[in-house]
Amino acid sequence: MYAQGLDQTPANHVALSPISFIERAALVFPEKLAIVHGELRQNWLQTFSRCRRLASALQAKGIAVGDTVAVMLPNTPPMVEAHFGVPMAGAVLNSLNTRLDAASIAFMLNHGEAKLVIVDSEFAAVMGQALEILQKSHGRTPIVIEAQDEPFVAPTGISRETYEDLIASGDPEFEVVLPEDEWQSICLNYTSGTTGDPKGVVYSHRGAATNAISNILEWDMARHPVYLWTLPMFHCNGWCFPWTVAARAGVNVCLRKVDAQTIFDLIRRHGVTHYCAAPIVHSLLINAPQEMKADVPAGVKAMVAGAAPPAAMIEGMESLGFELTHVYGLTEVYGPAAVCVKHDEWESLDISERARLNSRQGVRYHLQADVRVLDPETMQPVPWDGETMGEIMFRGNIAMKGYLKNPTATEAAFAGGWFHSGDLAVQYPDGYVKIKDRSKDIIISGGENISSIEVEDVLYRHPAVLAAAVVAMPDPKWGETPCAFIELKPNAKVTEQDIVDFSKQHLAHFKVPRAVIFGEVPKTSTGKIQKFELRKQAGSVKAIDS
Amino acid sequence: MYAQGLDQTPANHVALSPISFIERAALVFPEKLAIVHGELRQNWLQTFSRCRRLASALQAKGIAVGDTVAVMLPNTPPMVEAHFGVPMAGAVLNSLNTRLDAASIAFMLNHGEAKLVIVDSEFAAVMGQALEILQKSHGRTPIVIEAQDEPFVAPTGISRETYEDLIASGDPEFEVVLPEDEWQSICLNYTSGTTGDPKGVVYSHRGAATNAISNILEWDMARHPVYLWTLPMFHCNGWCFPWTVAARAGVNVCLRKVDAQTIFDLIRRHGVTHYCAAPIVHSLLINAPQEMKADVPAGVKAMVAGAAPPAAMIEGMESLGFELTHVYGLTEVYGPAAVCVKHDEWESLDISERARLNSRQGVRYHLQADVRVLDPETMQPVPWDGETMGEIMFRGNIAMKGYLKNPTATEAAFAGGWFHSGDLAVQYPDGYVKIKDRSKDIIISGGENISSIEVEDVLYRHPAVLAAAVVAMPDPKWGETPCAFIELKPNAKVTEQDIVDFSKQHLAHFKVPRAVIFGEVPKTSTGKIQKFELRKQAGSVKAIDS
Repeated sequence: MYAQGLDQTPANHVALSPISFIERAALVFPEKLAIVHGELRQNWLQTFSRCRRLASALQAKGIAVGDTVAVMLPNTPPMVEAHFGVPMAGAVLNSLNTRLDAASIAFMLNHGEAKLVIVDSEFAAVMGQALEILQKSHGRTPIVIEAQDEPFVAPTGISRETYEDLIASGDPEFEVVLPEDEWQSICLNYTSGTTGDPKGVVYSHRGAATNAISNILEWDMARHPVYLWTLPMFHCNGWCFPWTVAARAGVNVCLRKVDAQTIFDLIRRHGVTHYCAAPIVHSLLINAPQEMKADVPAGVKAMVAGAAPPAAMIEGMESLGFELTHVYGLTEVYGPAAVCVKHDEWESLDISERARLNSRQGVRYHLQADVRVLDPETMQPVPWDGETMGEIMFRGNIAMKGYLKNPTATEAAFAGGWFHSGDLAVQYPDGYVKIKDRSKDIIISGGENISSIEVEDVLYRHPAVLAAAVVAMPDPKWGETPCAFIELKPNAKVTEQDIVDFSKQHLAHFKVPRAVIFGEVPKTSTGKIQKFELRKQAGSVKAIDS
Repeated sequence: MYAQGLDQTPANHVALSPISFIERAALVFPEKLAIVHGELRQNWLQTFSRCRRLASALQAKGIAVGDTVAVMLPNTPPMVEAHFGVPMAGAVLNSLNTRLDAASIAFMLNHGEAKLVIVDSEFAAVMGQALEILQKSHGRTPIVIEAQDEPFVAPTGISRETYEDLIASGDPEFEVVLPEDEWQSICLNYTSGTTGDPKGVVYSHRGAATNAISNILEWDMARHPVYLWTLPMFHCNGWCFPWTVAARAGVNVCLRKVDAQTIFDLIRRHGVTHYCAAPIVHSLLINAPQEMKADVPAGVKAMVAGAAPPAAMIEGMESLGFELTHVYGLTEVYGPAAVCVKHDEWESLDISERARLNSRQGVRYHLQADVRVLDPETMQPVPWDGETMGEIMFRGNIAMKGYLKNPTATEAAFAGGWFHSGDLAVQYPDGYVKIKDRSKDIIISGGENISSIEVEDVLYRHPAVLAAAVVAMPDPKWGETPCAFIELKPNAKVTEQDIVDFSKQHLAHFKVPRAVIFGEVPKTSTGKIQKFELRKQAGSVKAIDS
């Protein structure tokens, strides 16, 4: 009975797409501030109009549905606009990490077949080298557009056409057409590729819209938030927040470079209400001099991902008056797709217990179908006992379409109908998942598994430790043993033996680091510690007597 | 390049469905209160478990995917549960208006082919008659389940199985399966059918989820709202709020019967934060005795639809300390699908200007693709001049699948790729639409169109008027002229001539009512004035000399 005469028509079925968010912001709140950058103030009508110009100008350059447009931009207005203008032209936005080397960029531009590249002048030199490799090795010569922005305004010669020229050539009345199919690709994001070539993660309009709305729900984000761009937009499209901010007709407070003084100034000046960042940025704010923090408004909401926030960070944020939400995800799930939802009852607990509860990766994001710890062999859920290890798996609309031109990796990632995160975890009786380790980071010592995260958690409790990372080092007797890399707080003085002694108080003997190396810990542009670098170093480290 | 190897799989594509909202509420907030009814307190885990029992019990009774389950229930816990338990069984929920007569019920049960009926004891008598007609005229005998609730607990004999028996027979661990296809039907709602037979409006899981989320966005609704059920859930599924409240893990404060004292008591007792209602309910609260309103918490958010809120209502709500949002929709668009978004700048305007701006039907709901005023002949948009009339049309995921077994009506409703609302309106320069009249309510006098709403707006400004409705009355000279039906406030004394004189001060002469009838104005169960009844009466009214 319900199978007939009730079909999808253009009247009752329209593709889900974040493009519709900016359309509505411009219609309903045309005069509301959309972008702040230095002295620039741009409202939603202006921003929408510039995005339409961008889309029409791209089409005029021959960019068609399914073409890739690559951008190498900091968190500046062109980056916000690219998140709408590129998909409005039907194209796929490939945001490149601004810290990449020329060879990596060339690899991505070739693999993603970028037809056009928009590059900030700051990165013109490295992009120039990449384009040379691209031309020589692959015979590709994409159109190049240069985005100029203070203080990088001197011509670099990489292109004769600037981003503003491109915008000026576009039609502000360009007719926006949503994709016919919401499964259409919207973004291409390369994973950091710590092993092998980077993989190109492809997002759909449906998924992008779904995660952008989930961000609102997770944060109870009311209309007109003032969002500070501490998190790079090249990183999982800034966790889909360019679209979230448009859906809420909020303000994008741009930020070229992460710097504590600038961040506190912007928070005060624009009344920032929300920001996201890797742990390192939160630590930077917490450890900033007291005078920098004066008069910072209370109640700023912060999201952290990349590593569980240690107790010191939770306390630090509390003393700043900021509210911290711990989320978890990967490039393959559009950034965060799980959240450690806090409960009122937790507030009365002591800080160590609060930190323990908050350190968990939590439950599925609002509009994600499921996140669970499954046995990767049997695909059966592990018991919710907080002890049995398995792998975190996701399922739902907040999971990538797949890896570009890599059906083998895509099939492996989706084996058994779940996305395999590669993170080893347990699930607690309350359904919250907690990462024990990346499967490749686990240390196997004398047949026993050692969670590098468990050891790191202990090290972070030491008052002198700013950052800590533990990896496996080869051991003739045990196969592997833990090796700790530690970055100390300014002026802190600790010996290797102090760290070992401290660890022994909190860890089983076989989990205690057998070597401690002090120095700056290498991090990715998104603040993630580069364990693969450390593993290389650990290969030649000598264990201490214990 | 993007066309290959990036397909939908069970890992990255899951049907949108409001069922997922209650799953998450039960997982993340199992102990949070879900339902309050009299002395009953039920948390989300219990509620989810009862819904699973209901689904499994329905399946045990032979209810399968695509079967219709009809309910005739007030805003009690079984009604909340039916909104999840019925679709969890794959079935379609047909909520019947509790004020219907036996013949209408029989028509709907036959047309919708209901296999099972859940009826509250209060309506057992009329349902008994309906079932008799159904059996005699159509040979149908659905399974009947009786829901008992204070004060209707005496056995009526309509069924030997109560709702609680049914729940007890079900499996609390029933495995919830989302629909394979989000286009699957979830609800069937009959229009009031002022002309001809009622039409069966069919909703999809996708549309229900989309409108439920839009409700959150429109209201900036934070987690754990306390929602009072003043609006009947049988009316467009309570504008999709049963699903909205689950998505926010809020509290459903049930309400068997609208009554000012009870409403104020519940608001105080449970800290109600949100409610929706027809204008008549808001008026009831505003006009309640002062002592009833004592200590009502400030900031309660109220939604009104069905007619534009007149200035008196806006002022009345302000004096109560309530925040009023004006929304607009029809059964065919899942309840509200447009909203008169308020702007900060409006707050400084005087009340009449605020009322004028707020009386507009506004802009598209967050996740609706579009609402526009189009010329129904050419399907071209009218100029945004606030003057040119056209018809309000909707397009997007918040539009019905169609009318059940009525492809002709469905095609007409969706002609040209838009849903035709039947409401005549203008569009203002700011994009806001404003209804001038239902196409069938317009009064054509000497070739001039008179908007019945414009005349009513004037009548509402008269201090003695509680409710007003204007319809066409036949006129030998002009064809039609306006006839006013007026319900006065208690103890108010006004003559027909007073009303006419007052109208002349505010209206062009030809728009002034030529007859005024005092008395109670007939309303539907949802508070809508029944103009078709008034038109019948107006046929025999004698015009006054003017």
